[in-house]
Amino acid sequence: MLEKTTRMNYLYDFYQSLLTPKQRSYMSLYYLDDYSLGEIAEEYDVSRQAVYDNIKRTEQMLEQYEEKLLLFQRFQDRQRILRQLKETLQTSKCGDETLLSLIDSLEKLE
Amino acid sequence: MLEKTTRMNYLYDFYQSLLTPKQRSYMSLYYLDDYSLGEIAEEYDVSRQAVYDNIKRTEQMLEQYEEKLLLFQRFQDRQRILRQLKETLQTSKCGDETLLSLIDSLEKLE
Repeated sequence: MLEKTTRMNYLYDFYQSLLTPKQRSYMSLYYLDDYSLGEIAEEYDVSRQAVYDNIKRTEQMLEQYEEKLLLFQRFQDRQRILRQLKETLQTSKCGDETLLSLIDSLEKLE
Repeated sequence: MLEKTTRMNYLYDFYQSLLTPKQRSYMSLYYLDDYSLGEIAEEYDVSRQAVYDNIKRTEQMLEQYEEKLLLFQRFQDRQRILRQLKETLQTSKCGDETLLSLIDSLEKLE
């Protein structure tokens, strides 16, 4: 059975533009809409095994992209520092609105 | 003639891990070490036209990756806000060392 992990959701989010339309459809139904393999198979009139193989292969591709580009890892690193930045700013004496809104803009870019 | 632009240098930097070893060699010699097409052709014992075609094709691939993943564009957006953040912090009353060093950490992640 494939495991629906948060990690795979993120990897799909970062690299979906590099996938084929079919890969995107299966992944989106499975991970975002929480369809079962059987339901996707029925929807596309293919075998459950075919859906499983396609998703499994796509997951491997996503992991390979992450190995090369590290988008998820860098996203996590930035998020961690942004959290520290906000906390430091809020407990410091300068609750400067401009600074907070700039940090918000950085977060929204993610 | 191919134009050696700053943009292409950045795109190569962001997406080189997705290229083949040969593409990386040609691009690296041409863009980072400033070899001419003729010098690369001599080095690899191929025609100047072959080198030109390979680099041209690689540049198109890099632009396609950027269209899909926007790594360079997002990098520029983050850099712009980080600069504003630093300026605001330096002119504000709180020249907090912790805040500045956190922003430095964010910059180093780029």
